[in-house]
Amino acid sequence: MKIIVIGGNGTIGKKVVSVLSKKHEVIVASRKDTSLTVNLEDENSIHNMFKQATNIDAVICTAGEARWAPFSELSESDYYIGIRSKLMGQVNLARAATKYLNPGGSITLTTGILADDPVVQTASAAMVNGAIHSFVKAVALELENGLRINAVSSGLVADAAEKYEDYFPGHNVISMDKMATAYVKSVAGKINGQIIRVYE
Amino acid sequence: MKIIVIGGNGTIGKKVVSVLSKKHEVIVASRKDTSLTVNLEDENSIHNMFKQATNIDAVICTAGEARWAPFSELSESDYYIGIRSKLMGQVNLARAATKYLNPGGSITLTTGILADDPVVQTASAAMVNGAIHSFVKAVALELENGLRINAVSSGLVADAAEKYEDYFPGHNVISMDKMATAYVKSVAGKINGQIIRVYE
Repeated sequence: MKIIVIGGNGTIGKKVVSVLSKKHEVIVASRKDTSLTVNLEDENSIHNMFKQATNIDAVICTAGEARWAPFSELSESDYYIGIRSKLMGQVNLARAATKYLNPGGSITLTTGILADDPVVQTASAAMVNGAIHSFVKAVALELENGLRINAVSSGLVADAAEKYEDYFPGHNVISMDKMATAYVKSVAGKINGQIIRVYE
Repeated sequence: MKIIVIGGNGTIGKKVVSVLSKKHEVIVASRKDTSLTVNLEDENSIHNMFKQATNIDAVICTAGEARWAPFSELSESDYYIGIRSKLMGQVNLARAATKYLNPGGSITLTTGILADDPVVQTASAAMVNGAIHSFVKAVALELENGLRINAVSSGLVADAAEKYEDYFPGHNVISMDKMATAYVKSVAGKINGQIIRVYE
């Protein structure tokens, strides 16, 4: 398969690229520093990405940000950071992907455990993840040509644990291999409309 | 208790007002045609509402819209209709409410079964509902002064069934009494961070 991984230079993306590259042709895309660039907040940029990288069977998004802060400090515009980036960036990607992916192709989005099991300071981050979960389930009902859409929702991954573990008291640390396996399931399996939860 | 019901003239709001009025003082607010007016897309309007209606123990939101259309037809700006209205309208309400509600007071938001069990044409509507579910769970971790936040997620209610039943094949129709009881649980009970699902 020929697979685009957006955000393929990030903590999660790097591992996903490494695992998928063993059996597939993987193209890394990101906002900069890659031969294939894309800005998920700009629909035209997404269309340009798919026009450059033709004959794609699967697209994975591991990019997107949201603002972490105490609920009492999050402003309305803080919420819109996550809405424009991690939420609508991935929605825009899914919308465009249906026009370019090969029949039977798959779209894999990235959310996270905060959707189901939030911690403090994540009113915005949790919201964005939960939004994508329901979006994926709804979109799966309408895809044509055998296209599929899923989301991987992982807990705190090992390579980010040192930096973030104090924000996730009592949460399991997820091995990078286990996390990446969820993306393999979405891409190489046949599931559609699934939230692949990797929480322990 | 003194309770504000925003959207109290709508299908759900009317019934909630009728049930809560038996034991509480209920003030109906909406965008127009009520003595208390509020535009949830405008933070200042929400603050003005709470300044006019003082000494409030609970606020319920049954207002907010999202665009229904086939996934292939929903534009980026269509998604932002739901984001600005049903999603950020309720987020803005929750943010403001924490500054005005009496200690121990409660915030009750409205979502819907599409978050968990979507039907076709609801990529945007489902997304907004799922976003609120995760938001509520995250915010509940940080509220102070005994404040509480919950969401009521109902299936297709009886008073809307004639108009919408063809969009919800195989879904249970929820009695108006059962739906309203969920709001009573949120307001008069002590739960916090719950999604009260009324699906059968």
